[in-house]
Amino acid sequence: MIEVQEIKFGVHYMLDGYGADREILKDAEMLKSILYKVPDDMGMHTISEPLVVEVGPKNKKDPGGLSGFVLIAESHISFHTFPERGFVTIDVYTCQDTIDSDKLTALFKDLFGFTSCDERVVDRGTKYPANNIY
Amino acid sequence: MIEVQEIKFGVHYMLDGYGADREILKDAEMLKSILYKVPDDMGMHTISEPLVVEVGPKNKKDPGGLSGFVLIAESHISFHTFPERGFVTIDVYTCQDTIDSDKLTALFKDLFGFTSCDERVVDRGTKYPANNIY
Repeated sequence: MIEVQEIKFGVHYMLDGYGADREILKDAEMLKSILYKVPDDMGMHTISEPLVVEVGPKNKKDPGGLSGFVLIAESHISFHTFPERGFVTIDVYTCQDTIDSDKLTALFKDLFGFTSCDERVVDRGTKYPANNIY
Repeated sequence: MIEVQEIKFGVHYMLDGYGADREILKDAEMLKSILYKVPDDMGMHTISEPLVVEVGPKNKKDPGGLSGFVLIAESHISFHTFPERGFVTIDVYTCQDTIDSDKLTALFKDLFGFTSCDERVVDRGTKYPANNIY
């Protein structure tokens, strides 16, 4: 049996922002433009048309909002906004080895205007084979 | 100033699977059907047409594969496959308070046939306002 060398596949950045700008969180055109701007600013490459969908209110916890998504060559970017709660939750998943999380957080803070946030970066695919196995 | 009661927004399930079935990882139709099946099986509700896109080889680390995504009322499901490496990386993000990660992992193991995996579940939006703030 051949020994498979393992490397890290990528990194996954997660941001939950609070106290964000209500008008931006509900502006579908603005949100779509963010899905073009962020990959551009971060040196990533979109491979699908950015999708922004309005999601109706569901229950007491979920008063409705908008969801956005774009595939990038490096993996994907998604967010879900809840304008009435001033909340936005964002994922940027890249197969690059590192991600400039400070730059990303500053960029999102500027775009969404949240007043506080929780940021997390986790390694993904830590046993990814360095070479083809088939 | 009114005190805002904070609750948890949702949970985010991440799975990285190794040694998966090469033929399934490269089968766009099969992958699309997975994006219908998983929400169904988990009591979630798709709100966008599942998207599966072939992503060409990029560099030594990335020999190409397929990316899939679907918006669900509860947030989103995404995956990226790399058939030649037997690797699939999956995200299921839901605004439900809990997620049956054992059931999900068993379901994905059955669908993708990976031989080992790393699973992680993280809380998201832990300071989500329980009521509208605007």
